[in-house]
Amino acid sequence: MDVTLADSSLPDALARAAGVVEGALDTLLPRPEGPEARLAEAMRYATLNGGKRLRGFLALETASLFGVSQTCAARVAAAIEMLHAYSLVHDDLPAMDDDDLRRGKPSCHRAFDEATAILAGDALQTRAFEVLAEADTHSDPLARCELVAGLAAAAGARGMVGGQMIDMLAEGQRLDAPEVTRLQALKTGRLIQFSAESGALLGRAQAPQRHLLAAYGRDLGAAFQIADDLLDTEGTTEETGKTAGKDAAAGKATLVAILGPERARAQAELLARQAAGHLDGFGEQARMLRALAGFVVSRRS
Amino acid sequence: MDVTLADSSLPDALARAAGVVEGALDTLLPRPEGPEARLAEAMRYATLNGGKRLRGFLALETASLFGVSQTCAARVAAAIEMLHAYSLVHDDLPAMDDDDLRRGKPSCHRAFDEATAILAGDALQTRAFEVLAEADTHSDPLARCELVAGLAAAAGARGMVGGQMIDMLAEGQRLDAPEVTRLQALKTGRLIQFSAESGALLGRAQAPQRHLLAAYGRDLGAAFQIADDLLDTEGTTEETGKTAGKDAAAGKATLVAILGPERARAQAELLARQAAGHLDGFGEQARMLRALAGFVVSRRS
Repeated sequence: MDVTLADSSLPDALARAAGVVEGALDTLLPRPEGPEARLAEAMRYATLNGGKRLRGFLALETASLFGVSQTCAARVAAAIEMLHAYSLVHDDLPAMDDDDLRRGKPSCHRAFDEATAILAGDALQTRAFEVLAEADTHSDPLARCELVAGLAAAAGARGMVGGQMIDMLAEGQRLDAPEVTRLQALKTGRLIQFSAESGALLGRAQAPQRHLLAAYGRDLGAAFQIADDLLDTEGTTEETGKTAGKDAAAGKATLVAILGPERARAQAELLARQAAGHLDGFGEQARMLRALAGFVVSRRS
Repeated sequence: MDVTLADSSLPDALARAAGVVEGALDTLLPRPEGPEARLAEAMRYATLNGGKRLRGFLALETASLFGVSQTCAARVAAAIEMLHAYSLVHDDLPAMDDDDLRRGKPSCHRAFDEATAILAGDALQTRAFEVLAEADTHSDPLARCELVAGLAAAAGARGMVGGQMIDMLAEGQRLDAPEVTRLQALKTGRLIQFSAESGALLGRAQAPQRHLLAAYGRDLGAAFQIADDLLDTEGTTEETGKTAGKDAAAGKATLVAILGPERARAQAELLARQAAGHLDGFGEQARMLRALAGFVVSRRS
């Protein structure tokens, strides 16, 4: 990857952010109590699993551009990670992608059972919106409403879930590059875009700044997805913590399959540079966000 | 049922409210478009199915106590009905209650498929919160935040989904009356309670009025659930549109099974009178809400 996007302090920044997000999740997720304790256990199992917290990092870093308190930003980061975790729990179900492994551990329905996994995913989604709407997230209720509506737009039928529907319907079909690009923009892109935008919402930033961060998130998300598909093709199960080659075996449409790995990698690198370009006006403060664009296309897991 | 709670104009009021809710749902649900059209079709199938709209009626009627515009109240009613519809779609799944019929028609996963039903339920939940957060629901964003947080608290791990978890774990086990009462308060009671409270939130009512409506909703919900279990025991599949005797066959814990039908019916009637009693201070305006308390324990379907 373009050396100008590399930054040796990114791994530390990512690890620090992951710690902050993990702490917020631990505080905000329900405790296992009463006869329904199994539900909270499954919610915690699916969420507190040492993920990279890419989305949470985006929320924290973009919020810091506007001087937002880390306490508020961490709540938003945690809400986004809960929403993301719910989508993984449901995507892994037998009726969906039927995946037994998630980040190298049994997926939620394997560790518990299908009914518990469905309910845990449902309750994680609910809790994500609840956290955003609560007064501790922002003193201005209008900001909280914009966060709820923004996350919902990214996650719903015209966003993530719509993308997952297309993905299910497309299995074994031949999609062309524009169709795959739209599918991935919905399925993973919209939530990554919202994560990058969320700092601007928390910071009550002007529209142009918000739009630049959204554009950064959009291009970053597209680059990330191609890199993820390259990893699925090239990585091993140990490296990725997911069943290797699973998407290809399921006939999943990816840009890697359509363009071939070399052109796909070039496309991902172009998108990463484009993502970083949207941050020019944010100066030195956006250093980690620029470095992240380089990281997502060079990572090995 | 106690004749003092009967009102011959209730059926018309219910039908009128159901029409208003149906219209709002039709406007607010996504249109089937693009390669993901199947998702919107399933969301509409699961929601626009001519239900009684008890929860929507409660939102509309309680909002009218405070002079809230019907346009705003109808959005809240529709959001609550979307949340309720999502819960039915997921509850009917093979891994959950495995029910093929819902209101006399194939349940969502039978009419479509399991993956589509999971996703349609997910997107219905998302859309419910999105509608509440949007500016058209209330001019004051604080009211919108309270609606989002209130619905989430009713629907999440400490509410509806928590209740469904206990219900799944309790199958074939012997719960006692207090345990069943708590299960049902979570599983169905909390959402009915929130529906009755929502008018007070929309109307920016004082806390005592809000608490009275919440108490009304809580007792009404408990009465409703016992009546529902009596119907499951005594009704036919044609009358209820659900597989008759299904809950008993599954060993589901109900107050009817523990107390016997006669004592359960007496308990439901007591709760209905108690519900109506909370409305004393609201005078003639709350006539339909009082009549509803009588209706839920005397209905045949």
